Amino acid sequence: MQSRDVETGLVVILCPGLAGPLRRKIKDRLESFGGEVTAVEGTGRFYLEVRGEVAAIQSLVVESWPGVEKVVSLGGEFLHTAADPDRVPEGVNVGSVCIGAGTFSIIAGPCAVEDEQRAVRIASSVAADGADLFRGGAYKPRTSPYAFQGLGDAALQILQKVRAECGLGIVTEVLDPRDVENIAGIADMLQVGSRNMHNYSLLKELGQTSIPILLKRGFASSIDEFLMAAEYILSGGNSNVVLCERGIRCSTATNNVVLDLGSIPELKKRTHLPVLVDPSHGSGDSYRVPALARAAATVGADGILVEVHEKPEEALSDGAQALTLDQFGELVPQLREIRELLEGHGSGVPDDLVSTPGGEDL
Amino acid sequence: MQSRDVETGLVVILCPGLAGPLRRKIKDRLESFGGEVTAVEGTGRFYLEVRGEVAAIQSLVVESWPGVEKVVSLGGEFLHTAADPDRVPEGVNVGSVCIGAGTFSIIAGPCAVEDEQRAVRIASSVAADGADLFRGGAYKPRTSPYAFQGLGDAALQILQKVRAECGLGIVTEVLDPRDVENIAGIADMLQVGSRNMHNYSLLKELGQTSIPILLKRGFASSIDEFLMAAEYILSGGNSNVVLCERGIRCSTATNNVVLDLGSIPELKKRTHLPVLVDPSHGSGDSYRVPALARAAATVGADGILVEVHEKPEEALSDGAQALTLDQFGELVPQLREIRELLEGHGSGVPDDLVSTPGGEDL
Amino acid sequence: MQSRDVETGLVVILCPGLAGPLRRKIKDRLESFGGEVTAVEGTGRFYLEVRGEVAAIQSLVVESWPGVEKVVSLGGEFLHTAADPDRVPEGVNVGSVCIGAGTFSIIAGPCAVEDEQRAVRIASSVAADGADLFRGGAYKPRTSPYAFQGLGDAALQILQKVRAECGLGIVTEVLDPRDVENIAGIADMLQVGSRNMHNYSLLKELGQTSIPILLKRGFASSIDEFLMAAEYILSGGNSNVVLCERGIRCSTATNNVVLDLGSIPELKKRTHLPVLVDPSHGSGDSYRVPALARAAATVGADGILVEVHEKPEEALSDGAQALTLDQFGELVPQLREIRELLEGHGSGVPDDLVSTPGGEDL
Amino acid sequence: MQSRDVETGLVVILCPGLAGPLRRKIKDRLESFGGEVTAVEGTGRFYLEVRGEVAAIQSLVVESWPGVEKVVSLGGEFLHTAADPDRVPEGVNVGSVCIGAGTFSIIAGPCAVEDEQRAVRIASSVAADGADLFRGGAYKPRTSPYAFQGLGDAALQILQKVRAECGLGIVTEVLDPRDVENIAGIADMLQVGSRNMHNYSLLKELGQTSIPILLKRGFASSIDEFLMAAEYILSGGNSNVVLCERGIRCSTATNNVVLDLGSIPELKKRTHLPVLVDPSHGSGDSYRVPALARAAATVGADGILVEVHEKPEEALSDGAQALTLDQFGELVPQLREIRELLEGHGSGVPDDLVSTPGGEDL
Repeated sequence: MQSRDVETGLVVILCPGLAGPLRRKIKDRLESFGGEVTAVEGTGRFYLEVRGEVAAIQSLVVESWPGVEKVVSLGGEFLHTAADPDRVPEGVNVGSVCIGAGTFSIIAGPCAVEDEQRAVRIASSVAADGADLFRGGAYKPRTSPYAFQGLGDAALQILQKVRAECGLGIVTEVLDPRDVENIAGIADMLQVGSRNMHNYSLLKELGQTSIPILLKRGFASSIDEFLMAAEYILSGGNSNVVLCERGIRCSTATNNVVLDLGSIPELKKRTHLPVLVDPSHGSGDSYRVPALARAAATVGADGILVEVHEKPEEALSDGAQALTLDQFGELVPQLREIRELLEGHGSGVPDDLVSTPGGEDL
Repeated sequence: MQSRDVETGLVVILCPGLAGPLRRKIKDRLESFGGEVTAVEGTGRFYLEVRGEVAAIQSLVVESWPGVEKVVSLGGEFLHTAADPDRVPEGVNVGSVCIGAGTFSIIAGPCAVEDEQRAVRIASSVAADGADLFRGGAYKPRTSPYAFQGLGDAALQILQKVRAECGLGIVTEVLDPRDVENIAGIADMLQVGSRNMHNYSLLKELGQTSIPILLKRGFASSIDEFLMAAEYILSGGNSNVVLCERGIRCSTATNNVVLDLGSIPELKKRTHLPVLVDPSHGSGDSYRVPALARAAATVGADGILVEVHEKPEEALSDGAQALTLDQFGELVPQLREIRELLEGHGSGVPDDLVSTPGGEDL
Repeated sequence: MQSRDVETGLVVILCPGLAGPLRRKIKDRLESFGGEVTAVEGTGRFYLEVRGEVAAIQSLVVESWPGVEKVVSLGGEFLHTAADPDRVPEGVNVGSVCIGAGTFSIIAGPCAVEDEQRAVRIASSVAADGADLFRGGAYKPRTSPYAFQGLGDAALQILQKVRAECGLGIVTEVLDPRDVENIAGIADMLQVGSRNMHNYSLLKELGQTSIPILLKRGFASSIDEFLMAAEYILSGGNSNVVLCERGIRCSTATNNVVLDLGSIPELKKRTHLPVLVDPSHGSGDSYRVPALARAAATVGADGILVEVHEKPEEALSDGAQALTLDQFGELVPQLREIRELLEGHGSGVPDDLVSTPGGEDL
Repeated sequence: MQSRDVETGLVVILCPGLAGPLRRKIKDRLESFGGEVTAVEGTGRFYLEVRGEVAAIQSLVVESWPGVEKVVSLGGEFLHTAADPDRVPEGVNVGSVCIGAGTFSIIAGPCAVEDEQRAVRIASSVAADGADLFRGGAYKPRTSPYAFQGLGDAALQILQKVRAECGLGIVTEVLDPRDVENIAGIADMLQVGSRNMHNYSLLKELGQTSIPILLKRGFASSIDEFLMAAEYILSGGNSNVVLCERGIRCSTATNNVVLDLGSIPELKKRTHLPVLVDPSHGSGDSYRVPALARAAATVGADGILVEVHEKPEEALSDGAQALTLDQFGELVPQLREIRELLEGHGSGVPDDLVSTPGGEDL
């Protein structure tokens, strides 16, 4: 792909009038990382074009080098997550469900598994209403050490029974690299929570497995950082990654969180990975969840991750943002109909939703 | 409305063991603002319940008073904007269009009026495609004084011709209280831009008129501040205010802005004022605008304000976020169909979209 | 200054393989703004170097033009505020005080003027303790229309008496372009508050005068935007502008505001304008004000603007952040001694505080 | 401590007119967590005062319970970190250095250990200039998996030699709970980086040791969350925790980060733990580091953590923000003199710097 090589890379703009030996030194240092560097002479200043191995260079702070005025990235650092212009994404298989292959997947369940009977009742209900996978936390990352931390292993046993009884695949969170093997033996998909998106030890451990990963965006992470976190898993060898937008911190948003729905069209253009939306953490208020879930369906997301509880007011965590079983039951057909409408629109899917492969920076 | 009186007000929690004379002094000071204050004795501390005139008190920093531990607001400061449990909102009339009475209104046009022919061509096109009102800037607030500042009076003349030729009502921005009378003589609706949401001189001036106002949320303003800005206009006597969410600044959002779609269900619950969404400023990228416009239709907004340009790449401002005429033409039917779907859903409109009057803090 | 011409300007990086006619079209459009444009051929792509009139071009969204991949600014848009490598800043005279000429200026007083006796007592006290100018609000921008809005004209009369009795020059806020002439007739310096930093009508009006302006940073404005707001005043003809950092909104800061003390060294490098710090609004808590005022003295600020009140708990606005007269009296000698220490340090002023003229982007 | 019991706790404000059985149910549920609950009757509504075991309750979302209008925290959830009114903090011993006992500690060194000779040269230099401890990263958390990740075990060996040769205690970062034992065997203090402040598995592991911990504030974490992260370590049994403010993300700050110096007086009031400041990550630009380091000395911090490198432009990480050896040498005496000045001021230390024990919420 010659054109991709020209398109991606770096341009290093040198300070005006920089002397030849210094230009040479900068060029040598850039070449030492393995890429091809070409000097271009402008009017009074030089440019260095870098092609090839730019991922490592881009993590340096080249702009702080003496003699360098600016560094312009032209892409190429997202080695595994970048959208491929020549390939339609295939989606990620989680048990019998395929996320990201044109369907709208719904993952529903309580924030935390609290007891077996309750978990089975919730799972049965959401399954009957059309959920594709069941979520339930066994290990919970809580701001306070004095808050309910999840039932741990006992919850894993419950989740196994839930799958056996209700037939839904299980999604549950992993917090510690030492737990990966154990949880992966039971769950169908491991969730990396927002607080752990930057936990690179955990991401590297998950890269060594082949289990599907639900990677949530850090609550104060940019899209570049989000995709780089996914690179940690993919570059390790595990390509079964599903992204999830879950709201970012913002000083003027209610509850200090705003769901970044505009990130969905951006992610769909930049990466081949499926993208879900979590309207529960993205609002913090159950009364706003149905509206945001419908919005997710219209912006091109591949599905939602939503908290549902039998009795939200009794929940040991996150009760304020959980839908009741009835609310969930009313929401699902709305989502399905919106997707049908969009997919059947006029001559077909709206242009901006068609998964025409696109370049990373176009 | 006795129940409202009990529901709204303040509770002032006093420091433990505060002596009687100090308690009395605080009570007196609170009463001096005109409300009714009742002392309640707890276990080791006292509470002062304030009912009645609390709007002025709430703007004091009562928590900094010696002897006061906490102040808890129970509502009542949003005198004119609060949703009325006993009244269905009637909407705001702008020419022949009524915004917020169950319809989905579309206001479209270029960021700035650049020349007459172009303005007429754009207006004719968006009118034919179903726009309800035409937007076009005569006076533009620009970050740089060296940037195009709008054509000013000449643009107002052009806007008058646009209305005459295309039949669309005109929405244009006002920046200066001295321009209100002049612009109000020509436009059907005056826009207060995001940078001026806190320009209280301008808001007070607009409160003295009866022209419809499109009030955009400050790019770093909370919902409380947004509603208080509307209070400036309504308390002056002008109740024709339409709110518009247009994105808020956030360090980790692309282009530093995120559209706060979750604010729509919150605003619909808290206020009787109509609420629009501006997906153009809310993303900064035209390729993301259709998705966010559809999302606006699903979260309960009363319409959108969207930038449309004949040749976005030639626009003198905001070209990156403007839809082409064709893109707008494709978007409108999607929005109409989504609304029809939602309004006709099952036994009717989704529960969370029904405009059942709700209390401010429920 | 030939070197400045090479240093400043724009580099427009074109898409790889862009055809000659399109390159020509982009070059022509850039030249139409009056600058000089040179095409440079790289490996597979072209660069356009723009020198000269770039301020207007930089306000366009050139990156959205078809065929343009990236636009890199090399400076030159801050025509009047940029630091001049050949000139030591002279400071801004306010009455008999010169701000920014090596001294550390202290502007102190209450948020709002409440009554004459109190204003005189506060002014006498802060004058005796070493304040250089007196601040007091006549017109107050308040979030709520039901909050105390200032005494208006009556306060201006009081401020005149304060100056006559206490000898301190007067700093007071202007909210409305229609009030500029009136207030300028009485005050020695006009303050533009944080909410009005983007009120370009007001800034333009102030540019037509020669009165000293205290321009506060918008609470959600970048340094570029802050300097551009100053450009509005300077480009109008008024060069008597003093900047003031007063805290910016941040979701994880206490009281939602964080004082950006790191902006001071940046501003001192980029602009010749004096820079003050407001530790009162920058914290919102009086107990944190002395620490932040001392910090301001160590980072190179030219002084502080600080709220002082006789009885903060009785203040009609901002009482929580006002120092008492005693606290102010204790703070001033600390500030003076820190400055003496730094100015006399070892072989002199710390290197990073020396006002060696620096370039905008160095 | 009877007064503390009255002062701390919760007040649950019930909805107006709530029926007796519902009030009883809420009271029972609150009591089930072990605290003492008293009902107080107001005018038309009830209050429930909760004393005793409130830490677990406060992590519930009690406000979402039916019948509850508001929940007001009166403190008591910071069981181990809260400042103790009856005890002067003793500081944390790290080798022969005691952080937080009235001294100003300086921890200096490169972001990452790159090779032995360089590490020894830097350590010798900063030791000679007055650094108290040496910092150097063996394991580096990098946004990109393609960036230099640290030398790992090899770096630990180097750090051991650095200590042997230069005599400085060693501070290095731990990323993975599985590495704690190994690194603790070599280092004198383990750093938890900003990205891992929410990594509760790691924090719990560290709570099981007795090694001193340098806990950096999450780049998007509130002070409450910061203190709760420390609670994870202290509640596990390790009380040797030193906090470090290192800048928080903010959309309008340069480099997207602002050093929250106002957090220092807040932390000093709320907790007995020592607090350092990191001006390197807090600015991202070496030219701003000396100013911010001096500021740290004036706001009451117990020291700084600062990046120093022999040749910042060759650094494999964070070069843009590292001081040179010379710059560090010039900075140290400035810091020492500022502290001497403040400690000897007038009748002594400025009032707001005196470590009079203070209550959590006063």
